[in-house]
Amino acid sequence: MAGFKHLVIVKFKEDVVVEDILKGMQKLVSDIDAVKSFEWGQDIEGEEMLRQGFTHAFLMTFEDKQGYTAFVGHPCHVEFSATFSTAIDKIVLLDFPSVVVKAAT
Amino acid sequence: MAGFKHLVIVKFKEDVVVEDILKGMQKLVSDIDAVKSFEWGQDIEGEEMLRQGFTHAFLMTFEDKQGYTAFVGHPCHVEFSATFSTAIDKIVLLDFPSVVVKAAT
Repeated sequence: MAGFKHLVIVKFKEDVVVEDILKGMQKLVSDIDAVKSFEWGQDIEGEEMLRQGFTHAFLMTFEDKQGYTAFVGHPCHVEFSATFSTAIDKIVLLDFPSVVVKAAT
Repeated sequence: MAGFKHLVIVKFKEDVVVEDILKGMQKLVSDIDAVKSFEWGQDIEGEEMLRQGFTHAFLMTFEDKQGYTAFVGHPCHVEFSATFSTAIDKIVLLDFPSVVVKAAT
């Protein structure tokens, strides 16, 4: 779906248990209605030169910018972010209205 | 949709006409059947510290890894990549099987 996207790519610190982070994230998107869809993935075979140490991508979709703003200010997100930020070695965030050029059929 | 994702985030060089790049990309995904969906966006208001200079995200979805491999080796992609790489200041690529935690309804 189009909508407003919140894209996070990260490299976790070495001692981080990614499963624990994922559990927290699953709870987060389940608790917050404004999150319309959530998917993630781990690059397990890309070229190191091109992924530059980043390993995980997380993509959330909101109906619109207002939905995203509601998510950011939600107490569950504020709490989760505090934990998440301690687990991160590198991070890039991009937030944007999505332009769908070719839609899944 | 789930499937196999090809995620590209970039910072273009200053003199690049992004519309021209986008036109090439639209033709590419239109010409290559293996690309099941394609969306992109430009972060126009994120915090600079968090997006670290990156401005655009491009996300393609393939049915599976084989579809992605077919795309990478397609002559149109090879040709496009040569042009694309000259327009890039910074880039991160992540390729991964997508895990859908919350599906769009």
